[in-house]
Amino acid sequence: MKKVAVILSGCGVYDGSEIHEAVLTLLSIKLAGADYRCFAPDIEQYHVVNHINGRVEENQTRNVLTESARITRGDIEDITLLDPTEFDALLIPGGFGAAKNLCDFAISGTDTKVNPDVLKVAKAFADVKKAAGYACIAPAMMPLVYGKGVRMTIGTDQDTAAAIRMMGADHVSCEVDDVVLDNDNRVVSTPAYMLATSIDEAYKGIQKWVLTVLALA
Amino acid sequence: MKKVAVILSGCGVYDGSEIHEAVLTLLSIKLAGADYRCFAPDIEQYHVVNHINGRVEENQTRNVLTESARITRGDIEDITLLDPTEFDALLIPGGFGAAKNLCDFAISGTDTKVNPDVLKVAKAFADVKKAAGYACIAPAMMPLVYGKGVRMTIGTDQDTAAAIRMMGADHVSCEVDDVVLDNDNRVVSTPAYMLATSIDEAYKGIQKWVLTVLALA
Repeated sequence: MKKVAVILSGCGVYDGSEIHEAVLTLLSIKLAGADYRCFAPDIEQYHVVNHINGRVEENQTRNVLTESARITRGDIEDITLLDPTEFDALLIPGGFGAAKNLCDFAISGTDTKVNPDVLKVAKAFADVKKAAGYACIAPAMMPLVYGKGVRMTIGTDQDTAAAIRMMGADHVSCEVDDVVLDNDNRVVSTPAYMLATSIDEAYKGIQKWVLTVLALA
Repeated sequence: MKKVAVILSGCGVYDGSEIHEAVLTLLSIKLAGADYRCFAPDIEQYHVVNHINGRVEENQTRNVLTESARITRGDIEDITLLDPTEFDALLIPGGFGAAKNLCDFAISGTDTKVNPDVLKVAKAFADVKKAAGYACIAPAMMPLVYGKGVRMTIGTDQDTAAAIRMMGADHVSCEVDDVVLDNDNRVVSTPAYMLATSIDEAYKGIQKWVLTVLALA
């Protein structure tokens, strides 16, 4: 049975993992006959956003690992405990948490830095060309993990694509139900809620993304 | 296109809606060609539970509607705005939030009271025998909504079943991938994570539950 490490970034699209993407990733892994373990960095979230009105809750702090545990029913580990040799593949769903907590693309744009523990794990998969997948805005990390020329997508948004191209990636436009494969690096990306307008639309792309990564694993 | 009202109770199995159940309910509705709107009561959660260690965060308060919005990407309304005449069916996923925030079964057992706004909506569907579904522990509300003799399930847990029988329900044991239909009341229940040990197992029951309710709608 193929084993997948999934990295989460909180719980909620505006300050953490996009919940539909995360849940549909876990579902797609199990329906494909593979298994998963979930991980997240044990750090404070960049901020807490009220998901009704979009406002930042200035007086609140939440922890990325603790909030991610809501998506996994408590079954999650600190990313520093992730041993890449125990897994066949790595998957990172999106949500602003991927661009605020795992890296700071949402704040720093082309000057993005990836959280060192996340970068260490992601590079461990990249360096040995072990299968990996990045969804939604998470592919913004890919130039820093894979280096210049990595073939990837965040969908069709031209401003975001331009920023990621400036970071050295070979950004390819992609529709919501499709994926972009970098065959040399064995890494797959998909737009998910960068483009999806409904949960069933997101599911099409996520399912194809998971199956494509598992086929490389 | 059939329209479903979905009632959420927070975001996370131990103090809110069970996230997999909620997301898979929304997915199943859309995959069946129906549409949904989500609602939650605008009240403080009974408490906030750290999902890593299970401890109650004594110094934290969170709002049920605000946290539920994380599951719906912000697209949710106060339950007092739910007009039952606009919908063909009602669905209530589980998680402890259903038994701590929508009603207080987790605290008061057989003396359970249902939140008045939730009860008003649930009774509006029950009184005209409009299709409805309750999953996981949410069926603990059914005797208070439908009255004595309502046929329902929370799975196979004998202590919980005994308490719900004392409240007047006709509790029927049910496996994780099945549903219990009360044909007279047009209401369907399923155990979901009262029994499920994995997300794909939960999905089987949730999907059957949604399809059974939609067939009655």
